[in-house]
Amino acid sequence: MSQPYYLDDFFTFLRFQTISADPNHAKDLQDCAAWLKTRLEKIGLHAEVHQTQGHPIVLAKNQYRKDRKTVMIYGHYDVQPADPLELWHHPPFEPHLENGIVTARGATDDKGQILSHILGIEKVIKEKGDLPVNITIIIEGEEEVGSEHLLEFVKKHKNDLVCDVIAISDTMMLGTNQPALTYGLRGICTCEISLYGPAMDLHSGVYGGAVVNPVTALARLISTLHNEKWHVQVKGFYDKVATIQDWERQAWSQMARDRSILEIAHVPALDGEAGFTSIERTTTRPTAEVNGFYGGYQGAGSKTVLPKEAHAKLSFRLVPNQEPDEILRLVKKHFKKHCPPTVRMDFKKGHRGQPYFMEPTKGFGAAAAKAIERVFNGTKPAFIREGGSIPIVTDFKHILGVDTLLIGLALPDCNEHSPNETFHLANLETGMRLNEALLEEIAVL
Amino acid sequence: MSQPYYLDDFFTFLRFQTISADPNHAKDLQDCAAWLKTRLEKIGLHAEVHQTQGHPIVLAKNQYRKDRKTVMIYGHYDVQPADPLELWHHPPFEPHLENGIVTARGATDDKGQILSHILGIEKVIKEKGDLPVNITIIIEGEEEVGSEHLLEFVKKHKNDLVCDVIAISDTMMLGTNQPALTYGLRGICTCEISLYGPAMDLHSGVYGGAVVNPVTALARLISTLHNEKWHVQVKGFYDKVATIQDWERQAWSQMARDRSILEIAHVPALDGEAGFTSIERTTTRPTAEVNGFYGGYQGAGSKTVLPKEAHAKLSFRLVPNQEPDEILRLVKKHFKKHCPPTVRMDFKKGHRGQPYFMEPTKGFGAAAAKAIERVFNGTKPAFIREGGSIPIVTDFKHILGVDTLLIGLALPDCNEHSPNETFHLANLETGMRLNEALLEEIAVL
Repeated sequence: MSQPYYLDDFFTFLRFQTISADPNHAKDLQDCAAWLKTRLEKIGLHAEVHQTQGHPIVLAKNQYRKDRKTVMIYGHYDVQPADPLELWHHPPFEPHLENGIVTARGATDDKGQILSHILGIEKVIKEKGDLPVNITIIIEGEEEVGSEHLLEFVKKHKNDLVCDVIAISDTMMLGTNQPALTYGLRGICTCEISLYGPAMDLHSGVYGGAVVNPVTALARLISTLHNEKWHVQVKGFYDKVATIQDWERQAWSQMARDRSILEIAHVPALDGEAGFTSIERTTTRPTAEVNGFYGGYQGAGSKTVLPKEAHAKLSFRLVPNQEPDEILRLVKKHFKKHCPPTVRMDFKKGHRGQPYFMEPTKGFGAAAAKAIERVFNGTKPAFIREGGSIPIVTDFKHILGVDTLLIGLALPDCNEHSPNETFHLANLETGMRLNEALLEEIAVL
Repeated sequence: MSQPYYLDDFFTFLRFQTISADPNHAKDLQDCAAWLKTRLEKIGLHAEVHQTQGHPIVLAKNQYRKDRKTVMIYGHYDVQPADPLELWHHPPFEPHLENGIVTARGATDDKGQILSHILGIEKVIKEKGDLPVNITIIIEGEEEVGSEHLLEFVKKHKNDLVCDVIAISDTMMLGTNQPALTYGLRGICTCEISLYGPAMDLHSGVYGGAVVNPVTALARLISTLHNEKWHVQVKGFYDKVATIQDWERQAWSQMARDRSILEIAHVPALDGEAGFTSIERTTTRPTAEVNGFYGGYQGAGSKTVLPKEAHAKLSFRLVPNQEPDEILRLVKKHFKKHCPPTVRMDFKKGHRGQPYFMEPTKGFGAAAAKAIERVFNGTKPAFIREGGSIPIVTDFKHILGVDTLLIGLALPDCNEHSPNETFHLANLETGMRLNEALLEEIAVL
């Protein structure tokens, strides 16, 4: 079988080690942005790389015409860290193609998906000479670390970014040939909590019993986050949470989320906040999660120390109408209240993103649904909310005043954020057709 | 000031990187054992290196004479790991001498102390031609990892190791010129508990809420170890704990342990099991300690994963008459009971050591007290129990049927098991004199 014409582009894109969380990869992000600019210019778009205090932003547009709508396509070229590296079957930044599936960090999230828009636009221009809409493509390099500088950029360039609607392919399908239109996203806030005990690691025999162990103390603090029923115990945490609407519960009752989660996670059993289904727990209910915990000896064998310090990285997934800043304030207050006076606590705020909700059945939502139905041969998209966070979506709404159509093509087993991330070339091609159909449907609204 | 004659020996001894927990240092332990053999032969003793399944044991004796008592001196040439390396002011295995204080890993625990016996014996033989007792010196390389193969060795060679009493310098003084005779030690048992959740790290937005986080689950498990009053909550944990005797409470009431702990640990406040003093908490009460905890992302910035696994290394300090094997059984039962069915638990037993208690006021105990009083110019030793564990002491008692005199010279601020471990040369010389006085007092019993 001959290789598809776009494979070189896809592989080149994936080889850039664009880990935004790691300062050592700053050069890789610059290189990737420069490559994107060149690639977008090749289509005939006007493209620019905008430097920021962080990683650069790539912006591209076609010729503006007053008589047509303006659609902004957003994506990101940065990726999650690839560790634990030993679990990858192939090097994460050396794309591997087998049975039509590409394995590489960023294959789905979000390089494959943003590339499908670029290739789709290129194809339409090549075949039809022009697009039916004004297009603005914005591709950032800090999505995985909170889009801090994109926010500044959007604020500063809001007049350049005026548009009617935004489209993003960075969300999930329910399965192969089970497309979805995502009308809600969870927000996020992250923090790091550190407990400092003795000035140095102590002999656990000599001091154990009289000096409080910071690792034990931090474990006890973490254990105050939830009760037995997995309700988050931070005071005020649920105060502003919007209740799930009846039509949503109705729609989701058909979806077998438990089985798909069990297939992916391979855990003995699922559990979560009492009174809610897995779909609700992962989309419309907020969570408190420990992303990392470390303290004391981690080497081979044992070392009988009473460790000097302990650290935990936490994230909270938020739903309408929780406010990330307020939640961090409540979390800090919670830990301060529960922290024993025998250790020193340090609380560091991390990145924040608002939760998002839009009306999926009318206007642009309906246009997107129609485009999806066309591309998927008559299969209507499921209307879903997603558990992940794309903070910039809410920022777009606030600053530019427009909604975002979330028409992602990630499959449930794509391993995004995990080792062996995959993207099906078939989905990349679907994305190209969906881009075309979406612009057409929006154009005739 | 000219350098003391023994400094070369001490520094050579300290330079061997004899970290018994790390298999990469096996050769260093072999080299150190070979060096000790040569050094002991130089004194005129018959010395042998005995290979084991683990690190070798060095054994040395003088000429046996029926008409005198036999004293066994025990020590260890292995050391604790040196990390965190960045906190050392000088490389841990390149001894640094300043103001009469040597800084190096193992300076106090136990190289400096066992060397003081070797040098003391050498001095007496040189000055008086012979020792007043039969001497057996046994120096092992696995004390910091549980003395597993020494135990086998002692069982196998028990006829070669017949003696009247054993002396060990591996315990604490209360301060400079505040000698102590230790008549009790805590025992120990260690274990590692691992929780396995999803098959891989998951996206915390997509799965968070429905899949139980193994790090959170492990923190919750650890939090079940103690109640608010720091009583260990493992069922049956205290059942066999011997009560503290009145004369002990009386004797210890004079000792200002809190202040010395606060000076070393620099913690905001002390806390521990309610109803007990710091001395009691660290010597006669058992503890449950987390020596290390790790799971999830530990790198720079944040990574919003739901980690696949979490691990904790635990140790329990035990007191008479707790049984290490029984405690591990109870601990495992405790964790099994509290572990949620949403994660897989793995419980790995580590090393074990019995607690120890001897009568300090009569017989050999009184002889040791008298020797200490002589060397410290009339200052009587405090009778203390120690929080650390020297498991082999109880094994000696069981196999050889003799008591052990614990006449250690470690100062409270020597940083054993911590960065910047120190030993005062003055204490090394005191140790030489104490060795001489002890053998004399035992000889005339």
